Amino acid sequence: MPVYPPIPPLPAPATEVGDDRFHEECGVFGIIGEPDAAAKTAFGLHALQHRGQEAAGICSFDGEHFHSHRGIGHVSRVFKSDKVINRLPGTSAIGHNRYSTSGDTVLRNVQPFYADLAFGGVAIAHNGNLTNAVTLRQRLVGEGSIFSSTSDTEVIVHLIARAAASSVEDRLIEAMRQVEGAYSLVALTAQGLVGMRDPFGIRPLVLGRQGGAMILASETCALDIIGAEYVRDIAPGEMIVIDRAGEIRSLQPFPPQQRQFCVFEYIYFARPDSVCEGLSVYGARKAIGRELALESHLPVDVVVPVPDSGVPAALGYAEESGVPFEFGIIRNHYVGRTFIQPTQKTRDLGVKRKHNANPAIVKDKRVLLVDDSIVRGTTSIKIVDMVRQAGAREVHMRISSPPTAWPCYYGIDTPERDRLLAARYDLDAMRDLLGVDSLHYISLDGLYRAVGEPGRDPGAHRFCDACFTGDYHQPLTDRDSGPGPEQLSLLTEKRK
Amino acid sequence: MPVYPPIPPLPAPATEVGDDRFHEECGVFGIIGEPDAAAKTAFGLHALQHRGQEAAGICSFDGEHFHSHRGIGHVSRVFKSDKVINRLPGTSAIGHNRYSTSGDTVLRNVQPFYADLAFGGVAIAHNGNLTNAVTLRQRLVGEGSIFSSTSDTEVIVHLIARAAASSVEDRLIEAMRQVEGAYSLVALTAQGLVGMRDPFGIRPLVLGRQGGAMILASETCALDIIGAEYVRDIAPGEMIVIDRAGEIRSLQPFPPQQRQFCVFEYIYFARPDSVCEGLSVYGARKAIGRELALESHLPVDVVVPVPDSGVPAALGYAEESGVPFEFGIIRNHYVGRTFIQPTQKTRDLGVKRKHNANPAIVKDKRVLLVDDSIVRGTTSIKIVDMVRQAGAREVHMRISSPPTAWPCYYGIDTPERDRLLAARYDLDAMRDLLGVDSLHYISLDGLYRAVGEPGRDPGAHRFCDACFTGDYHQPLTDRDSGPGPEQLSLLTEKRK
Amino acid sequence: MPVYPPIPPLPAPATEVGDDRFHEECGVFGIIGEPDAAAKTAFGLHALQHRGQEAAGICSFDGEHFHSHRGIGHVSRVFKSDKVINRLPGTSAIGHNRYSTSGDTVLRNVQPFYADLAFGGVAIAHNGNLTNAVTLRQRLVGEGSIFSSTSDTEVIVHLIARAAASSVEDRLIEAMRQVEGAYSLVALTAQGLVGMRDPFGIRPLVLGRQGGAMILASETCALDIIGAEYVRDIAPGEMIVIDRAGEIRSLQPFPPQQRQFCVFEYIYFARPDSVCEGLSVYGARKAIGRELALESHLPVDVVVPVPDSGVPAALGYAEESGVPFEFGIIRNHYVGRTFIQPTQKTRDLGVKRKHNANPAIVKDKRVLLVDDSIVRGTTSIKIVDMVRQAGAREVHMRISSPPTAWPCYYGIDTPERDRLLAARYDLDAMRDLLGVDSLHYISLDGLYRAVGEPGRDPGAHRFCDACFTGDYHQPLTDRDSGPGPEQLSLLTEKRK
Amino acid sequence: MPVYPPIPPLPAPATEVGDDRFHEECGVFGIIGEPDAAAKTAFGLHALQHRGQEAAGICSFDGEHFHSHRGIGHVSRVFKSDKVINRLPGTSAIGHNRYSTSGDTVLRNVQPFYADLAFGGVAIAHNGNLTNAVTLRQRLVGEGSIFSSTSDTEVIVHLIARAAASSVEDRLIEAMRQVEGAYSLVALTAQGLVGMRDPFGIRPLVLGRQGGAMILASETCALDIIGAEYVRDIAPGEMIVIDRAGEIRSLQPFPPQQRQFCVFEYIYFARPDSVCEGLSVYGARKAIGRELALESHLPVDVVVPVPDSGVPAALGYAEESGVPFEFGIIRNHYVGRTFIQPTQKTRDLGVKRKHNANPAIVKDKRVLLVDDSIVRGTTSIKIVDMVRQAGAREVHMRISSPPTAWPCYYGIDTPERDRLLAARYDLDAMRDLLGVDSLHYISLDGLYRAVGEPGRDPGAHRFCDACFTGDYHQPLTDRDSGPGPEQLSLLTEKRK
Repeated sequence: MPVYPPIPPLPAPATEVGDDRFHEECGVFGIIGEPDAAAKTAFGLHALQHRGQEAAGICSFDGEHFHSHRGIGHVSRVFKSDKVINRLPGTSAIGHNRYSTSGDTVLRNVQPFYADLAFGGVAIAHNGNLTNAVTLRQRLVGEGSIFSSTSDTEVIVHLIARAAASSVEDRLIEAMRQVEGAYSLVALTAQGLVGMRDPFGIRPLVLGRQGGAMILASETCALDIIGAEYVRDIAPGEMIVIDRAGEIRSLQPFPPQQRQFCVFEYIYFARPDSVCEGLSVYGARKAIGRELALESHLPVDVVVPVPDSGVPAALGYAEESGVPFEFGIIRNHYVGRTFIQPTQKTRDLGVKRKHNANPAIVKDKRVLLVDDSIVRGTTSIKIVDMVRQAGAREVHMRISSPPTAWPCYYGIDTPERDRLLAARYDLDAMRDLLGVDSLHYISLDGLYRAVGEPGRDPGAHRFCDACFTGDYHQPLTDRDSGPGPEQLSLLTEKRK
Repeated sequence: MPVYPPIPPLPAPATEVGDDRFHEECGVFGIIGEPDAAAKTAFGLHALQHRGQEAAGICSFDGEHFHSHRGIGHVSRVFKSDKVINRLPGTSAIGHNRYSTSGDTVLRNVQPFYADLAFGGVAIAHNGNLTNAVTLRQRLVGEGSIFSSTSDTEVIVHLIARAAASSVEDRLIEAMRQVEGAYSLVALTAQGLVGMRDPFGIRPLVLGRQGGAMILASETCALDIIGAEYVRDIAPGEMIVIDRAGEIRSLQPFPPQQRQFCVFEYIYFARPDSVCEGLSVYGARKAIGRELALESHLPVDVVVPVPDSGVPAALGYAEESGVPFEFGIIRNHYVGRTFIQPTQKTRDLGVKRKHNANPAIVKDKRVLLVDDSIVRGTTSIKIVDMVRQAGAREVHMRISSPPTAWPCYYGIDTPERDRLLAARYDLDAMRDLLGVDSLHYISLDGLYRAVGEPGRDPGAHRFCDACFTGDYHQPLTDRDSGPGPEQLSLLTEKRK
Repeated sequence: MPVYPPIPPLPAPATEVGDDRFHEECGVFGIIGEPDAAAKTAFGLHALQHRGQEAAGICSFDGEHFHSHRGIGHVSRVFKSDKVINRLPGTSAIGHNRYSTSGDTVLRNVQPFYADLAFGGVAIAHNGNLTNAVTLRQRLVGEGSIFSSTSDTEVIVHLIARAAASSVEDRLIEAMRQVEGAYSLVALTAQGLVGMRDPFGIRPLVLGRQGGAMILASETCALDIIGAEYVRDIAPGEMIVIDRAGEIRSLQPFPPQQRQFCVFEYIYFARPDSVCEGLSVYGARKAIGRELALESHLPVDVVVPVPDSGVPAALGYAEESGVPFEFGIIRNHYVGRTFIQPTQKTRDLGVKRKHNANPAIVKDKRVLLVDDSIVRGTTSIKIVDMVRQAGAREVHMRISSPPTAWPCYYGIDTPERDRLLAARYDLDAMRDLLGVDSLHYISLDGLYRAVGEPGRDPGAHRFCDACFTGDYHQPLTDRDSGPGPEQLSLLTEKRK
Repeated sequence: MPVYPPIPPLPAPATEVGDDRFHEECGVFGIIGEPDAAAKTAFGLHALQHRGQEAAGICSFDGEHFHSHRGIGHVSRVFKSDKVINRLPGTSAIGHNRYSTSGDTVLRNVQPFYADLAFGGVAIAHNGNLTNAVTLRQRLVGEGSIFSSTSDTEVIVHLIARAAASSVEDRLIEAMRQVEGAYSLVALTAQGLVGMRDPFGIRPLVLGRQGGAMILASETCALDIIGAEYVRDIAPGEMIVIDRAGEIRSLQPFPPQQRQFCVFEYIYFARPDSVCEGLSVYGARKAIGRELALESHLPVDVVVPVPDSGVPAALGYAEESGVPFEFGIIRNHYVGRTFIQPTQKTRDLGVKRKHNANPAIVKDKRVLLVDDSIVRGTTSIKIVDMVRQAGAREVHMRISSPPTAWPCYYGIDTPERDRLLAARYDLDAMRDLLGVDSLHYISLDGLYRAVGEPGRDPGAHRFCDACFTGDYHQPLTDRDSGPGPEQLSLLTEKRK
């Protein structure tokens, strides 16, 4: 067996199975014309919890004052009581789930970000990442602006505060024309609710309706939870303005661009019951599984998903291949955030806290595992080992994404390139490192086929696939010329 | 449509999907001859978390002193830090997960129960329910014993304290001969570790080994998590004594009885990756699904499990029937204990906090739902309604247990009889109340076939099925003649 | 200057000024015939907070059930909300403040101690210390009793549970006849409220009345706070029984003994506004100050109390001597329990957290400090040093108690003998160690004169003064022959 | 007896004795050249705790980064652990105690206020109140500034951020020249430590030294606690700049003004062991007591202070009059923030939670009470009643301040005018309302004599006495023409 350079160790705290994934950064929700605006927003954020688990916040407007409540933790913890919701009166509200990619998770960084401006209050929440935020921030500080957070969102608000235009709407357009990167944004003002998607449409944003109320949300599952109906996706570069009378206007303040929706939303980020840009996420995942079977099938006894993200692709694979689908790995539903640190002796028990191989299924079998991605590889190694210890005769691995070899700058938390397994090893090396009998990733063309394209058109591909290809369509100003984000603030204040 | 008496409403707090089930009461774990005894016990309890989520405790013995830590909440919360584990030194330990069926969940009721007796300390934890506990307690109080809890376990310890025999072992036997009901018990003394199963073998208890350490646990998944090997099940009525030198003795202090293992362990309680009395739980569930298909199949488009307990039976049903298996109901993984109370308008959103119908799967389809049981029916009604709202053309329901019409007195938390749907309505009425196009429960004989019997032998059935049949094999002294448990204590002290 | 053996260091956590004192162990309160029984008890305990700050508890009886709430911390924290009080309904209640002298401060040790006995419930709280508690406990465990705490109070309850007599009253008498040591006890049963004082009358207990309600309390200040009137002191050895109809009976179950009221109650423990056995505590302290001046006056410029306990004696000294009384040491009212641990550099700042010398008063002056006692001496040294650093020309020290050279076994927390400064050094040595220009303790006869006696009659002294004389009147069974209290339990369970 | 209009009731929560006072708003502390800068600052703030108890914060600078920790509560709670202090490295630091007069006590309002400006970081903490803060804030928001708090301090920082000057020093001067009102300010920059006092010198600020470290503090008691020596008071209008090399420069950026030190610092705010502008606070209070006796003495038996603020004046009164000084009211040291709300029956017990009349002192006596001030009068009425109930034959009241009839706009929390007793009633009416036999306030001239003046010179009085006279020397721009502070923010966000 050849000798490979070692896999870099995971950073200390991330020893758990399931942490070895890309992480979505945020979910947004907005509603107007609804007497229970804050409660509905809390439910919407709850449905979007998978997009960000570190913090949550809601800002409402009651016709006179804005009301805000933000906190660290899951939505159901931050908004656990009626008392909290009752402090958020009004018929319009926006909300946000946070997974931090930039800025510490201290309370002042939790969105929505609110500011009193000369013309009134404005609250903003966004999903995405600005690629020139640090550069803009330096310019603004030089002009006398004072920042109270290190989040991108505050940059947008300062741009609005200093804009020359007189209407809120025009000020927001003026601000967003200075901004680069990916964003799906909701804003709340005394006039109404605003939604915007960046010109490339990288992150999702949909419009819904429930009776007289209009809703903006990252995914359709946030419409389902409150029983609202899906109207349409916000278009790339579109700005939609809903006033308090319910009137809707659609603006197109940016020049048109090649659509670049993030294909990883289909692979892993979005909830399986959501429909993104017209395509069922669950259906797309099953289709990828079918493509995987077509590309790489070989004789095995059982198809086993790595819970829970590998399940639809494994079902698709099993259907296409005719091999039985079985839950050969059982997930423990009671895994909390913290637990005793294993001593030397119990160190290897970590993986089993979350999963257990089901010996009745895998013993003496040729097992084909299906997972959605391999980021650093550390937990895949442990899962393969666990399945072998439970008696599997062969272990094969199928991955429902192409190799992830490039970091994302558009709102997904990815490791540095030198920590990505696929950036450092070829397929044979990865197969040996994982200890599997065979390893196959879906091909780029296979992936495009699964989401309804004839294949990937290198000149005009409809999806952002930079994490597989390094093909970045948006400028990366801060990365290329800007100061490091570590210079954003001279202050440390940990516990806020 | 006929008019039926109304379903009694759920008690106020239990408004969530998934709460409308029977609840297992406890899991036990014991280990001896292991330097990391307390840490391994914590991992074992974590694997048994599904058997009781209200409280957890561990008691260890270091050769001189006993050390105990107990707390309210999940295992990973009660034992969240190394600091806690380090306060539990020693090479032997027992642990317990609690779901209270009798006694408030105050800290003094959390097991293991420890007492300093004249001959030394003893700690006891048990899974089950004593059916003459109140009667015994009254006798003991009359003799001058003072109880510090309202848990059954303390009755056992007082019986030991007052026993005439001289050895701990004989005192324990003397105590257990006075006790009626179901129990699987682990005890820790200065001499060693003891395990006992009631003469009918109602609750499970298995023996494992890992190097020089011996282990007792409610289920094999608690052996898997620490990498221990399964040795055998403790036999009904067996008392197993493992001393600190590792020597094992097996005693049979009771007259032999007809084996009565709880069949609901296969249907719902046990973890799918466990093997109970030689039979894979996952396999048994799939077999029930297959029997269901044989008994009741009709033309549908898709087989959809009610997550998560209906999944293996649905897989079995789909295999047997040839109908595609799909995740037509998506479970939200981020459901916490508390959340805002819905107002009038948002009241019906409760069910959607936990689940969402996947419209891509169920829309315009004939859907067959598979669930493990119906207790009060309230949440089944909501799930059916949710699936219909998502566009299903037909909704059929298959249940992988017979109708549950009788309360359990042997360690399972069941509602009073008049709250059990199947005790008040016949099949047609239930079908109408649930709003399904067809409803079928597995037959008693089908259930016995699925777990390896030719059918149910009314004279000598191998399993306790009293919750379906009312056929109670153990005496119910407290129920028939004893005082109510509400007279156990004149004291109320809520927050402890 | 002669060389003295070093003062033993204080135990680690007790680095604060003011901790270098004897500590009272408990305060008790009971009330019957009062609709707001629990609220009045909480106020009474609040007035008795100085007698014990570690924990507090109240047990009430509503005619049918007993209700208990106990917690760690001050009364105002344990009973901070109406909600807690409302969980304690009934017209009779007893309460307790704890300063632990034996038994860990875990919740199970917090009084009142409640038990369901064969004849009904009984709750007991006591102030004092049983000198044969360990011996009794061992006997009871040998007979099959199970203890749930390590507190003395539980011993009393077990003796009641096993008593042969039939009435609660006779059972209590039977129990207390087996007990040795000091106690003032309140008990609550379904029949009524009971108060008892040990035959020597070491600890205080008074009877009060408010409308139709009767009250028992450690001190009269607990009557004042609720506006009740003082009736009389409970006599040594008296048992007073108040039934629910308000009828009072007085019993004398013990043979008469020489009265031995703790003289330290006058010196330090009792609140200055209380009246103990007919004598104002404030008046007694001023009288001691006057005796001190008569015994030891010399020319100084200012009399300065060490706050706050030295204040009345300093006033008395100033009045008798004609020297101005001034607050030369200022107390910081905002001292909390914990604070940053000083580094090497800031280590000496500890004393200044609590007090500061007032330079305007002490600079260039001959200062006479008055304090109530010196236990280990460590903080006195720091205070003297602080006053000198503020510019005092001379520093003299007067102590309003005789030298404390013997430990107390009757309910006061005192260090071991070899840690008591006065047990190891003579007056000259102490003067040199403290760094004062002169040092004088009140004489024993002077102390007796101040509390109304002609002097101390060695054969028949009216007060317990064992901490000054080693003259113990009650047997010390556990100390002389019993096992150590460390053998009370084989269990450690820290956080309860 | 005449009929008077009723005293307006206290706002709901302020039912406690001692809350019926004026409240100081803040204390500040700064240090440079000290390895333990943050620890020393925490001790200094602890000594200044009486100036503000709602929140505390420290900001340190380690030569590269600023570090901040702020929290709600007392200093000893916010900085309770070494861990917190260790997160504040560096040899310079500033700190602040807050009592909010403007701005909610939410964390974002807690000082020091820090901002990253174009030239580096700056942290500011101040004691006082800006009388044109709202006006300035509106101007800044109009120019595009975004405020993250509602505190005055942020206004100063925005003025610095937008200043035209290039050096930090000049920017600070430029900012402060736009500001009106009272302030004593400390600022921390990468260059060093800055202290400023407003041109009228209303609030105190002193300079101290300890070895190579230089210190700024509101009062000398903060120097005493760390053993530092007092150097001098910062002069009115002075700006003192201490660089990291220890070099000190004194600037006078403002035109000179008539000195207007707040005379209430002597009466109540400052700690008795502090020396303000050369005069001992304790000495000043005793002198006021002596003046009171000269102005108003009549035959009584005992002089009793209302604890604790009346003590020095009562001592002075007793010395001058020759009447014995006694502690006739005992203060309970264990009063916490919250406690059970009294029911109808126990409502009057509130006052006794904090104090008890000592019957041994007041019974059958002519009692003269000395207190520092009467704000609304509600608690004075209760105290007088308590003393009468304890048996006093006569009760006289002497107040060591003139009648407080005007609100303070310079940093003290005072009620609106119509809630001030002395603004609504004349002396006879107040005497009758309080229920005393005689009532006397110190005269304005008597007060000036006590603090070393010949009397009050109406044309050039050295002290700010606006709360007695309504004679405001600083402009009140916001009050006279500005918007209400309630318009500062459109946002409510309570729990931060």
